[in-house]
Amino acid sequence: MEQIEEMAKRVTDLLDEKKYHELKELMAELEPADVALIFEESDKARLALLFRILAKEQAAEVFVELGSDMQEMLIYDFSDSELREVLEELYLDDTVDIIEEMPANVVKRILRHSEPGTRQSINELLKYPKYSAGSIMTIEFVDLKKNMTVEDAFTRIRRTGLDKETVYTCYVTDENRVLLGLVSVKDLLLADNSKTLEEIMETNIIYVNTLEDREQAAKIFEKYDFLAIPVVDNENRLVGIITVDDAIDVIQEENTEDIEKMAAIVANDKPYMKTGVFENFKKRIPWLLVLMLSATFTGKIINMFEQSLSACVILTVFIPMLMGTGGNSGGQTSVTVIRGMSLNDIEMRDIFKVIWKEIRVSLLCGITLAVANFIKMMLVDRSDIIASGQDPLSITIVVCITLIVTVFCAKLIGCVLPMLAKKLGFDPAVMASPFITTVVDAISLFVFFNIASLILNI
Amino acid sequence: MEQIEEMAKRVTDLLDEKKYHELKELMAELEPADVALIFEESDKARLALLFRILAKEQAAEVFVELGSDMQEMLIYDFSDSELREVLEELYLDDTVDIIEEMPANVVKRILRHSEPGTRQSINELLKYPKYSAGSIMTIEFVDLKKNMTVEDAFTRIRRTGLDKETVYTCYVTDENRVLLGLVSVKDLLLADNSKTLEEIMETNIIYVNTLEDREQAAKIFEKYDFLAIPVVDNENRLVGIITVDDAIDVIQEENTEDIEKMAAIVANDKPYMKTGVFENFKKRIPWLLVLMLSATFTGKIINMFEQSLSACVILTVFIPMLMGTGGNSGGQTSVTVIRGMSLNDIEMRDIFKVIWKEIRVSLLCGITLAVANFIKMMLVDRSDIIASGQDPLSITIVVCITLIVTVFCAKLIGCVLPMLAKKLGFDPAVMASPFITTVVDAISLFVFFNIASLILNI
Repeated sequence: MEQIEEMAKRVTDLLDEKKYHELKELMAELEPADVALIFEESDKARLALLFRILAKEQAAEVFVELGSDMQEMLIYDFSDSELREVLEELYLDDTVDIIEEMPANVVKRILRHSEPGTRQSINELLKYPKYSAGSIMTIEFVDLKKNMTVEDAFTRIRRTGLDKETVYTCYVTDENRVLLGLVSVKDLLLADNSKTLEEIMETNIIYVNTLEDREQAAKIFEKYDFLAIPVVDNENRLVGIITVDDAIDVIQEENTEDIEKMAAIVANDKPYMKTGVFENFKKRIPWLLVLMLSATFTGKIINMFEQSLSACVILTVFIPMLMGTGGNSGGQTSVTVIRGMSLNDIEMRDIFKVIWKEIRVSLLCGITLAVANFIKMMLVDRSDIIASGQDPLSITIVVCITLIVTVFCAKLIGCVLPMLAKKLGFDPAVMASPFITTVVDAISLFVFFNIASLILNI
Repeated sequence: MEQIEEMAKRVTDLLDEKKYHELKELMAELEPADVALIFEESDKARLALLFRILAKEQAAEVFVELGSDMQEMLIYDFSDSELREVLEELYLDDTVDIIEEMPANVVKRILRHSEPGTRQSINELLKYPKYSAGSIMTIEFVDLKKNMTVEDAFTRIRRTGLDKETVYTCYVTDENRVLLGLVSVKDLLLADNSKTLEEIMETNIIYVNTLEDREQAAKIFEKYDFLAIPVVDNENRLVGIITVDDAIDVIQEENTEDIEKMAAIVANDKPYMKTGVFENFKKRIPWLLVLMLSATFTGKIINMFEQSLSACVILTVFIPMLMGTGGNSGGQTSVTVIRGMSLNDIEMRDIFKVIWKEIRVSLLCGITLAVANFIKMMLVDRSDIIASGQDPLSITIVVCITLIVTVFCAKLIGCVLPMLAKKLGFDPAVMASPFITTVVDAISLFVFFNIASLILNI
């Protein structure tokens, strides 16, 4: 990042000195993603000027990497012919991604300046639901026919490959565009030039449907080492491909979404620095409200035992520790189980194995914590308890037993709730720490007061 | 997954009926990752038999995909010549990954049966620190010389490519193996056959050092759309490459690690279903202990205000709600900031922008929650408060003001602590919800009792 800042400074200097040629050469050496970062650092007023200095092909590649706010600014600045030039260089899936972020008037302008054929494809692509495989696929791939020879295939790749996002996996289709097989360029390179594709193509193909969840598509890349996977429609016709670089973006977005859900945030896919205050508020307030109101039950439990509490106020001192430990224990388990399910490490049929494992882990944790707490209370809290007129040993035993029971319940709930959620078709990530904490809070207090009443006779 | 279970059943049936030939054909059609899953489902006693049915090349690919426990079982079963055959087919980086998980006697046996050259390379690779770029690289890549023509390059790729993990990015090195440039097969395909590599190669290369963190290498794949990146030593000599499929594995492992740290778990990279009870206990107990003991401070605060609490026990009813809301608010912010930093969306120099944004979001959230809580307390808790002999309006006002202050502090701490941790060189993920909750618990109680003393005169 420091390099980028240095670069941005140098770019500003060259711009000030009007050394445009030198600037163009400097930027030509950089990766588009880095040029975009430099642009983001630079004075917005000179954005259009900077952009115009770029070589034509690089300009389009940089444009794709920019944030949607900067893309919008640039489009407003573009003349019609400049807009057309950039659009011509873009891959279709990138154009569609850009369009999805733009206000309606910009979208209209983009569509007006696209070639009629392109415009139709854009409109087709825009119809795929958000988060579907269709919405992230590219329609620029190399398609071949089964009776072509290896040599024919190379000729076709050479002729059409420049405009394709990947040439390394080529798809063999029949006259109705139904997917028959695939050949990799590696296979082609290592095969005899006179062989036909039918002889060498791979026919056991893993593919996704356009309407499938994009997360499913990304999971295929996690499991198998593919560079691209084909996307077919309901008639098994090849309509596009998903490339591994787009899959990585999906993997990271889905991870962010899971992490946000686990932290009781309503997920959206905008980066933090580009999310406004009100948008952030809207992402966070729903769960805060729900969890706050559901804490009413915990309050009710305390209220039920108000008499006992009045008789023994010192018990209150241990409520935060018990609730905290319960929440943390449950959170550990739920997050582990949710992540395990999302990585396909834990399956629904493993539920009893998981429960049995968590029972043993929870007992180990609970007993260790109880022992540590016993020592700590005897050393630290003893005098406070005596000062409040209670027997330190009894109070300590109440707290320790509650700890063991709470950790046990927390870990059990922490594994059962997410799996239950998945079984019922909900997203298990929502069942993470904050939700579990609220449930465990109520349980731990209920256990605490009952054990206290029993042992202390209050 | 259901398909896999069905398949596993069919495999067992065919095995029972001794239809080995049919079985071999069935499995030849499947992806190695799927065959591995079927093996994991099958009877362990027949694992070696099943494995021997596979075709030689597929056998090695399946072996790589198996869990380390099954690999170990198989190696014990292998004859020396079987072990040699599998080892010959494996890519070196995979062999090294397998060795790293094996007990010493198995490692010795593997090394004894590797070719002398391979053995040396394995030993070299084993020296790279865990989590370094060197530890995940492969040393099987295509290297070319700059005076080669495009045609020469293709000849060399055809001759050596079969054993390379990727042929699509080729590396141009000088006589001292110093990296000069790279050419993609796409560039080669689209270039004139008589051009030299020097004319067409890309010389602005993004690479990593062997000792760099593997996470840095993975981040390069997130940022740029590469299929492989070169790994060089301190003398800029090319020693290996990292391919995109390995980068995806690293991305997922690092994500899991972050998620676990955020849930107060000591991260390790073993999947849940293969982690024993005691190992799970060891991952979880450290933070549970630390957080439990640090809750002592919260207890001390309550103890400080014991007199006020005795005078007004109804206040206890709202402690869980205040602590919960504070923890959730802080957790939302800290998790958002930690994720933003890990995706390079939030940089250290953004700290004041982040604080300013969080201040506004926290006020919006705090006021909304206070209003909702006001209504809820007036409707639900009013009678309980009256029954306890207190004035409902005063108590409600105390709770609502505390809510606003708590949410404000929680969100401020939630963004400052992780960024501070990063600045000081610690992993910010540790500063997530559980840690923040403990800090916020103490603050919210302190605020609560002080406001209560002030307004209620207790």
